[in-house]
Amino acid sequence: MGFLSKPIKTLDDLFVHTLQDIYYAEQKITKALPKMIEKVTDPELKQGFQTHLGETKNQIKRLEKVFQMHGQPAKAVTCPAIDGIVDEAEEILGDVRDPEALDAAALAAAQAVEHYEIARYGTLLAWARQLGRNDCAQVLQETLEEEKKTDKKLTTIAESRVNRVAV
Amino acid sequence: MGFLSKPIKTLDDLFVHTLQDIYYAEQKITKALPKMIEKVTDPELKQGFQTHLGETKNQIKRLEKVFQMHGQPAKAVTCPAIDGIVDEAEEILGDVRDPEALDAAALAAAQAVEHYEIARYGTLLAWARQLGRNDCAQVLQETLEEEKKTDKKLTTIAESRVNRVAV
Repeated sequence: MGFLSKPIKTLDDLFVHTLQDIYYAEQKITKALPKMIEKVTDPELKQGFQTHLGETKNQIKRLEKVFQMHGQPAKAVTCPAIDGIVDEAEEILGDVRDPEALDAAALAAAQAVEHYEIARYGTLLAWARQLGRNDCAQVLQETLEEEKKTDKKLTTIAESRVNRVAV
Repeated sequence: MGFLSKPIKTLDDLFVHTLQDIYYAEQKITKALPKMIEKVTDPELKQGFQTHLGETKNQIKRLEKVFQMHGQPAKAVTCPAIDGIVDEAEEILGDVRDPEALDAAALAAAQAVEHYEIARYGTLLAWARQLGRNDCAQVLQETLEEEKKTDKKLTTIAESRVNRVAV
């Protein structure tokens, strides 16, 4: 399958591999978001994705800082999970014509992406602490909080859509 | 790419497609969990995975109930996201020899799976309500609550591991 650039034996190897995995994921997201911004019709969703694009670029810089703190080059390894989420979303968004369904699909894809990131940053944070790297943990926590805030914002938009239809 | 069994045009199509996606994911998880149970060494983690295997089988039954309520055959469509998460986890678990790192990798994989499920069930719940299918929503909510509880349990295990090392 070849996801791994080098054998993973220790917690430190796992930490570095997962940094590389999320570094790839964040880059994939910066490429996917502009296409989603273009497609969605709901102005609140469009604005939300625009804001998140800016945040994602900043999160990439934070990851580069963590790589540097940990004495590792900033490198990406293919992350099949994010590829799966984004590719599936792009295929669905290419299919759907109804604007209401299109926005719903884009919102769902964004929440799947956010949850993937929340899981990975949560893991990285725990491992940074376990490895005694509180400096890295602090930087990772900033991003984790940002991702959780974005997911909450997306949930609020999703709920307001439900209420709009239910009224 | 061929993820889609039929063109997705409406919110109802999206709802059915996402049910098929998570139906596939749950089945993949029931195949992956026994291998993880066998590999991990931490008894708390082993027990947690064992409990979750039982829950997952029950969640499959709940999905079949939702398919039936919605007048659709229970059918799975390939979900590349869950394939990515599980395949990557299996490759890493095949590599790692250190039991501490192996348990950490298994825990991380389980949390990525939980977050994928939380995102998808959250979306399905919102869409069921939007489609006026409160009967389906009620069944989906049971599973969503269960997944959130499992994620919290995994976070508690992850935190106790951090503290154990930090002491």
